[in-house]
Amino acid sequence: MKILIRLVAVDIDGTLTFKDRKLDLAAVEAIRKAESAGLPVVLATGNVLTFAEAAATMLGTSGPLIAEDGGIVFDQAIKQEHVLGGRVEADRGLAALERAFGSLKQTRSSAVRLTGLTLERTIPVEDASKVFQHEGLSLVAVDSGFAIHIRSPEVNKGNALRKVSSISRVPLVEIAAIGDGPNDIEMLRVAGISFAVANSADEVKRACTHVTTSPYGKGAAEAIESILSVRR
Amino acid sequence: MKILIRLVAVDIDGTLTFKDRKLDLAAVEAIRKAESAGLPVVLATGNVLTFAEAAATMLGTSGPLIAEDGGIVFDQAIKQEHVLGGRVEADRGLAALERAFGSLKQTRSSAVRLTGLTLERTIPVEDASKVFQHEGLSLVAVDSGFAIHIRSPEVNKGNALRKVSSISRVPLVEIAAIGDGPNDIEMLRVAGISFAVANSADEVKRACTHVTTSPYGKGAAEAIESILSVRR
Repeated sequence: MKILIRLVAVDIDGTLTFKDRKLDLAAVEAIRKAESAGLPVVLATGNVLTFAEAAATMLGTSGPLIAEDGGIVFDQAIKQEHVLGGRVEADRGLAALERAFGSLKQTRSSAVRLTGLTLERTIPVEDASKVFQHEGLSLVAVDSGFAIHIRSPEVNKGNALRKVSSISRVPLVEIAAIGDGPNDIEMLRVAGISFAVANSADEVKRACTHVTTSPYGKGAAEAIESILSVRR
Repeated sequence: MKILIRLVAVDIDGTLTFKDRKLDLAAVEAIRKAESAGLPVVLATGNVLTFAEAAATMLGTSGPLIAEDGGIVFDQAIKQEHVLGGRVEADRGLAALERAFGSLKQTRSSAVRLTGLTLERTIPVEDASKVFQHEGLSLVAVDSGFAIHIRSPEVNKGNALRKVSSISRVPLVEIAAIGDGPNDIEMLRVAGISFAVANSADEVKRACTHVTTSPYGKGAAEAIESILSVRR
């Protein structure tokens, strides 16, 4: 049985970009090819919605946006924002971390986040998780390589992709996902087919139906080409 | 006398992009070539700082950022934000406009703007200017094609470029600027050399020392190539 993929969700940093966060233009060209072929692209990022909107405008993607690691889904077609969580628990978590480690610095974007918060990488992420466990807080701490993200476990790109599926009326089985990081795993698991780019950690690769041969943006381009070739 | 250009300031929408705001990859490649050649690029936008930061990250520009039409200058090297204006007068202007035209809708980004505000394009920009004049408000109204920008006249990309010159310790005469819109004129006027891309309005072209033969991103690429060729 051949399943038609009708939507493709793609992480940004490390998936469409080089290691230094610059866009790989090969990935940009593949995304534009997908859009031209009638396959809308969903950008999915741990960054704030304004960042995701900037990327969508400059790249030219038409699918809903996933921001704040899944905390926000934005329907570009009707400019509607869905907030899928809050930051009350995360703020409690920050207070607990500061009791344990002293004053911590939030990143510049943290103040405007609606569904979690981000800290500069000055404490080991495992120690943050231990504090949450010890204090009975239902929170996860994820090191994205750029910041430590503190959020409720139900805030993740997988639950956000379910929301995207519902607002787009495209069943999850007809959605492909591409990513590289631990914060992409839930999204990669719920999508019908999933691609880890070659630079992904083993746990990310294990969550996927496919692993690309190329890393970073070249890997995302390879995945998109492969999805488009099956559609023809 | 040959002047060495040491910094190049570039508008984003309509200058690095096609008409639909998608990046022209030829312009991206030219920008990366400039950065590799040791010529830092300053992105200058009417959009909010987060948008400018997203663009700088994805394109790979290292120069200070100009956001909010010159209201904000951000030094990427030391992550310092300079706020070159306020929005008190603009908020007064909005109240005056609403007395004249009834309730008006701000754009989604308007709430987070520090130095002005942006309205959806539901009233003619000339009428807004007339209201400000009549009420004795020191405000300008500019239609960017995407929104009506309301700001104090001293908030402009020209004054922002003076700030960039001062924090970068590069005299204005050694800075090149590239733009297409009426909100770029002050910046184009204060720069040592200036390029209007071919799609610019006549008033923008008249403010410049050069006009490119190509429009939009291809024009920006042409301008950057020309700057780099003189440096060799």
